[in-house]
Amino acid sequence: MKPKGAIPAGFAADADGMLLIGGRRADDLVHEAGDTPLFVYDLAMVRARIARFRAAFPGVELHYAIKANSFGPLLKALWQEVDGLDIASAGELRFALDAGADPRAISFAGPGKRDEDLDEAIAAGVVLNTESEGEVERALAIGARTGVTPRLAVRVNPDFEIKGSGMRMGGGAKPFGVDAARVPALVKRIIAGGAEWAGFHIFAGSQALDADALVEAQRATLALAASLAEEAGAPPPLVNLGGGFGIPYFYGEQAPDVERVGQTLMQELSNRPQIVGNTIFAIELGRWLVGECGVYLTRIVDRKESHGKTFLVTDGGMQHQLAASGNFGQVVRRNYPVAIANRFGRDFEEEATIVGCLCTPLDRLADDVVLPRAEPGDLVAVFLAGAYGLSASPQAFLAQRPAREMIVGGTR
Amino acid sequence: MKPKGAIPAGFAADADGMLLIGGRRADDLVHEAGDTPLFVYDLAMVRARIARFRAAFPGVELHYAIKANSFGPLLKALWQEVDGLDIASAGELRFALDAGADPRAISFAGPGKRDEDLDEAIAAGVVLNTESEGEVERALAIGARTGVTPRLAVRVNPDFEIKGSGMRMGGGAKPFGVDAARVPALVKRIIAGGAEWAGFHIFAGSQALDADALVEAQRATLALAASLAEEAGAPPPLVNLGGGFGIPYFYGEQAPDVERVGQTLMQELSNRPQIVGNTIFAIELGRWLVGECGVYLTRIVDRKESHGKTFLVTDGGMQHQLAASGNFGQVVRRNYPVAIANRFGRDFEEEATIVGCLCTPLDRLADDVVLPRAEPGDLVAVFLAGAYGLSASPQAFLAQRPAREMIVGGTR
Repeated sequence: MKPKGAIPAGFAADADGMLLIGGRRADDLVHEAGDTPLFVYDLAMVRARIARFRAAFPGVELHYAIKANSFGPLLKALWQEVDGLDIASAGELRFALDAGADPRAISFAGPGKRDEDLDEAIAAGVVLNTESEGEVERALAIGARTGVTPRLAVRVNPDFEIKGSGMRMGGGAKPFGVDAARVPALVKRIIAGGAEWAGFHIFAGSQALDADALVEAQRATLALAASLAEEAGAPPPLVNLGGGFGIPYFYGEQAPDVERVGQTLMQELSNRPQIVGNTIFAIELGRWLVGECGVYLTRIVDRKESHGKTFLVTDGGMQHQLAASGNFGQVVRRNYPVAIANRFGRDFEEEATIVGCLCTPLDRLADDVVLPRAEPGDLVAVFLAGAYGLSASPQAFLAQRPAREMIVGGTR
Repeated sequence: MKPKGAIPAGFAADADGMLLIGGRRADDLVHEAGDTPLFVYDLAMVRARIARFRAAFPGVELHYAIKANSFGPLLKALWQEVDGLDIASAGELRFALDAGADPRAISFAGPGKRDEDLDEAIAAGVVLNTESEGEVERALAIGARTGVTPRLAVRVNPDFEIKGSGMRMGGGAKPFGVDAARVPALVKRIIAGGAEWAGFHIFAGSQALDADALVEAQRATLALAASLAEEAGAPPPLVNLGGGFGIPYFYGEQAPDVERVGQTLMQELSNRPQIVGNTIFAIELGRWLVGECGVYLTRIVDRKESHGKTFLVTDGGMQHQLAASGNFGQVVRRNYPVAIANRFGRDFEEEATIVGCLCTPLDRLADDVVLPRAEPGDLVAVFLAGAYGLSASPQAFLAQRPAREMIVGGTR
């Protein structure tokens, strides 16, 4: 038996033992969507997260990193609630504009922006988080050619990382941003080049569960932004402090105490250096806002025994949930929280392995977990499917049926 | 400095140092396709592989596992040259039929076939490699309901694996196929149920580089097929011996000596048990046929330094080449063979890391490799991109520009 991650708070069953998502029965949602596999995103959970952020970080802007989940209806709803959207490609720019976002509230990071990406972004009026001296020069040239003033921030490669973060985005040699030592000169070049100077983007890591590490990274980020601004002689209109708030995926993991992080940041901001006295501060979150709101529902097609082990074969798999299969940056595969949706909260009766429908041993959704007994036709729920789910998975692999997506909890 | 895998034989440059693929300049191919990123597949290399197989395995059928690469023009050309196509989904069935394949030469394996998949496959007349007793019953019921006789083979979960194979598909508890001990009863059930008995599919592993291990697995597979047939009292019309021929991806790896594998198999088949005396034998290959024929071309967008390291940022990445980024079943990331396509074969001048355009540290195409000096605008070639490339990658991730695909070497 291997442990599963903990199911996020807020999920319960009705009297039949049917999992409810946003107050609606999982089987009804599948019926409404038309088929499995299905991603369901509960907007009420996202709004609760946003409210929690607002209470903990008063006065700090909340930006949504749309790479976490760019499903149109979700993005449209999110845009109504946040202060800015962070995009990572011209394709995401189009998603953001389609969702009704104000281009002036969009910022665009990404180390490989091509000239046509810069062109499109500058024309739209979004802020470019520039990643190199070369990119700044290209943006200035495009601005000169098109007569549109580029809005340029500098993405800084800090000399520190968020300790214990799942993805290290700073500390040492990185393809992201500009080494801190070279940033002041670049800020001067941006200003001298006639661009609108937009500030700093400093992202030290992601998926951090340790509040102390987040506090430490925010403190260092604030100090770095101030000292870079001093050196450049240019107060930054906005500093994106990064994000990195993690969610617990695996057994034994604990969510970070973001209220404590907020309390400390508020103290730091109230004593901040004068050069950033009028600066707007933003925190950019993706996974923490939407990760827990999503449930991936897939139907059991076969139940089989092999050498004493029970396999539940589903109509979904790693083509929709690469991360849950353990193939998205994990060194050791561990189990996401999973459940039999139509026997939710029932007694554990057996040990089983849940696999997808692909012909590869990589396609595992849950390994040796204890579950209520399940049969073909039953629904498997894989939790924590709201971020880096469908869009981060090899959807075309083996040309299996596509996953559907829907939102629930949309009324306020 | 970290080593790169060896570039497959057959790639050379013209006098300008431009990589040739199928005799055509890489830059011309990009121009013709319209843009980078681009996958180019050289049909002449695939045909050379097929010829090599035919010479080494006379009389053995060659089946193509289309999961390796289902790009339409490639599939159409391949179908002209092989004896059968192996599919893994109803989507792949449609690809095979669109390529003009004879449905009777198609076999369908996959542990999670839904009723509608079975229905579509039975109606088309393809062989189902059934994966469980339950699937057989469902297929028989569909046959009875529709009046079409299902063509049913049994996928066997053998008690052995190919030693040292990259993906173990047999040996112990597996979601694939039926444990050997239960197969004879299932064969009897298929025959008694009025289906067309189509034989065995026995797949013990994939990506094996050791010829001895392949010889041993084929010997064991032949013996297993014969003993299961004896127990069932039913000679199998066809035995799919699996495949598993690997290709060398990483530094120091060597291709298997398939000629020796063929020689041994021919001897085994000439002395085979009587019950399989009239059986057709097939080998199912995907990666070995198409893996080396593919080159992924992506353009350098930025060249940047960070803490003394050089990064070449491209307009491609893991969204098209997940395996090359090290996130497709690998425990330790190693470098695929890569080159600067427009300085092919030139002196190595520097150490650099090639990354994609995604905002994630996972997006690495080559780590600390030595290369000729490269600048923005230059083309990076990632080799071994013909199998499990685009279709096995998270193409929608970060909504980056889509990759294009083309074939070359199409004339004979």
